[in-house]
Amino acid sequence: MIPFQPLANTYGTPLYVYDFDAMQSQYHELKEAFRGRKSILAYAVKANSNLSVIKHFASLGAGADCVSIGEVRRALLAGVPPYKILFSGVGKRDEEIREAMISDILYINVESEAELGRVEMIAKELGKVARISIRVNPNIDPQTHPYISTGLHDNKFGVDLETAKRMYIRSKHATALEAVGIHFHIGSQLTQLEPIYEAAVIVADLMRSLSAIDVNLKFFDIGGGVGVCYNDEVTITPYDYAQAILGALKGLDVTIISEPGRFLTANAGYFLTKVLYEKRNGEKRFVVVDGAMNDLLRPSLYKAYHRIEALDKVGEESVADIVGPVCESGDFLAKATLLPMMEHNDLLVVHSAGAYGFGMGSNYNTRGRSAEIAYQKGEARMIRARETFEDLIALEREYL
Amino acid sequence: MIPFQPLANTYGTPLYVYDFDAMQSQYHELKEAFRGRKSILAYAVKANSNLSVIKHFASLGAGADCVSIGEVRRALLAGVPPYKILFSGVGKRDEEIREAMISDILYINVESEAELGRVEMIAKELGKVARISIRVNPNIDPQTHPYISTGLHDNKFGVDLETAKRMYIRSKHATALEAVGIHFHIGSQLTQLEPIYEAAVIVADLMRSLSAIDVNLKFFDIGGGVGVCYNDEVTITPYDYAQAILGALKGLDVTIISEPGRFLTANAGYFLTKVLYEKRNGEKRFVVVDGAMNDLLRPSLYKAYHRIEALDKVGEESVADIVGPVCESGDFLAKATLLPMMEHNDLLVVHSAGAYGFGMGSNYNTRGRSAEIAYQKGEARMIRARETFEDLIALEREYL
Repeated sequence: MIPFQPLANTYGTPLYVYDFDAMQSQYHELKEAFRGRKSILAYAVKANSNLSVIKHFASLGAGADCVSIGEVRRALLAGVPPYKILFSGVGKRDEEIREAMISDILYINVESEAELGRVEMIAKELGKVARISIRVNPNIDPQTHPYISTGLHDNKFGVDLETAKRMYIRSKHATALEAVGIHFHIGSQLTQLEPIYEAAVIVADLMRSLSAIDVNLKFFDIGGGVGVCYNDEVTITPYDYAQAILGALKGLDVTIISEPGRFLTANAGYFLTKVLYEKRNGEKRFVVVDGAMNDLLRPSLYKAYHRIEALDKVGEESVADIVGPVCESGDFLAKATLLPMMEHNDLLVVHSAGAYGFGMGSNYNTRGRSAEIAYQKGEARMIRARETFEDLIALEREYL
Repeated sequence: MIPFQPLANTYGTPLYVYDFDAMQSQYHELKEAFRGRKSILAYAVKANSNLSVIKHFASLGAGADCVSIGEVRRALLAGVPPYKILFSGVGKRDEEIREAMISDILYINVESEAELGRVEMIAKELGKVARISIRVNPNIDPQTHPYISTGLHDNKFGVDLETAKRMYIRSKHATALEAVGIHFHIGSQLTQLEPIYEAAVIVADLMRSLSAIDVNLKFFDIGGGVGVCYNDEVTITPYDYAQAILGALKGLDVTIISEPGRFLTANAGYFLTKVLYEKRNGEKRFVVVDGAMNDLLRPSLYKAYHRIEALDKVGEESVADIVGPVCESGDFLAKATLLPMMEHNDLLVVHSAGAYGFGMGSNYNTRGRSAEIAYQKGEARMIRARETFEDLIALEREYL
């Protein structure tokens, strides 16, 4: 059990706390599911990009899936070897592509024909051969939230099968390009096996037909997407997930790359916030806390549910909105949730806050971002200091 | 005309550019509308909190409406006199209240009975008298977006009329409290006069009935909310707005405080972004740009419309989504908009980006925030430097 109250007392609130042991268990469970096959778990850095979190996964053997050169730099700094780093994303700038190539990462996941052209041009400039993978958009509906669904033509990600084939053939004839992998990712927080199996079959078939024309790929990059339980969602297990993938791969000798992010971190993270005020407007009850949408955007942005626990508090519960200090009606952590009557300084623990929590944080309303704490083997340590007012204005002050 | 292309070349993209002359015109138009009455325009810092923007308004005579102690500090640093600074917001921490009181600002806008208790306690600790105003929630539907509507009991803001009255009476009998104002704000981006007039009448009536029991208030704080035109909305004019307020105030000798934010800055701001790629998925066209939801969140968060102009570009237009590099389907600047065919490095100008633009920005996907540029009397100058990778990891690195 994590000592939330002492941590809040020591480090102040709002505060992010990560259970590094729980992250490790998740990593092992997923890695184990692919046992007997060559596989790399490339941690999706965007889920939680704290350097110490990345280092923790690197120490377990993880690679890194990065979506900006900033994330690539984070991964390298945190000790991920370049040969386990991927660079994905629909909008890579030239200088990002250049730096990734100079850093000699495993491959660049290319998401459009235009991008392939830029990558080739830059590789020639550098006198290098660019290792690439192409992200295929299999046009499969993952049946998840529209904002985190990514495998339909309606989405900006990847290219359709015909375009992918054309790009692989182009790469084969280009001396500055070496196609080494194929990639797909149909969405986050998948709760059904069927779409992932269907997508894997489509992509594996493409891989086979490429092999027939002598385009031989080593890496089968299945993206991320294994869901976690925020509330009472039915999720798929890593084992079943792996079996669905392996079922589609029959006869193919490939290294499987998976890109878990949320699965590794979401339920290992907690957001601690203190109660400022109880208030009522007419019949409606509000519990005002010191954490806000600038700290945890998911409720506002996705209407996401996070379980919120009133620590060590008993008593009759009634319905309340839990809201923050930011001046927007959209600033809430929970709507119509049950809570006992709260007092000034009581602590609330927001669960499942380890993914897309701190990383989406802002300084809106001139609020400094929280500190981040790692909790491992019974010990807590700071992994990011709380932002001060001076930090917030550092890049403005000299121009005043 | 602002030289967007040279600015993009000099400072890089993505980039925020603010037209300080346009901000000044907006300020004067609103100030003029209240001519003949004592009034303070307290700039709502949250709309655009850059120190130089605040300083610009301060130089015109503006005060500052602040919603965190960070904003109060910004206002003071930028040269707003303490006697023109208000501190509003539903969730003030004790140390924020304390610092605001020590800074001797004009008044604290109190939003709940519990908060009034904290303010009184802190004033006693400090041996000071706390100047306060009470935010009344008049339960009026402003008929705007639910996230920016704030004057219904369903919202977390303010207190109902009965509670307000009770709080004023309590203040009257408390030696550490001095009630000097009354405040309401029914929502942002108001497009109709009727709700604002109704709300003002309700609050003015309360003020009169308080006067009858010898609670005499000096400040009538009407909040913000004058809308701007993003697309083709019908907006209310400052003149009509002021007339509605003045109509409700008949016979009351008060200083009017208004808290404009969006009205002063929204249409004076531009977000510049460059095209990275054109791509198609099936029939769908995407223009991928180097700006993203981490730079400008409004389209993702509110489905907000921003006019986007392809600079110096002619040719047949077709429908496209304008999307950024962030790995979410929710990362878009515009959906189904008309654009000519774009090429790598073409510049897009996103209009109306001066309010709730940069200030809601994040480092999601390890993307540094843009530079900010002021354009005034034909001259451009940097007012915030672009964030570097080193800036992003500064608070983490030592713990690695």
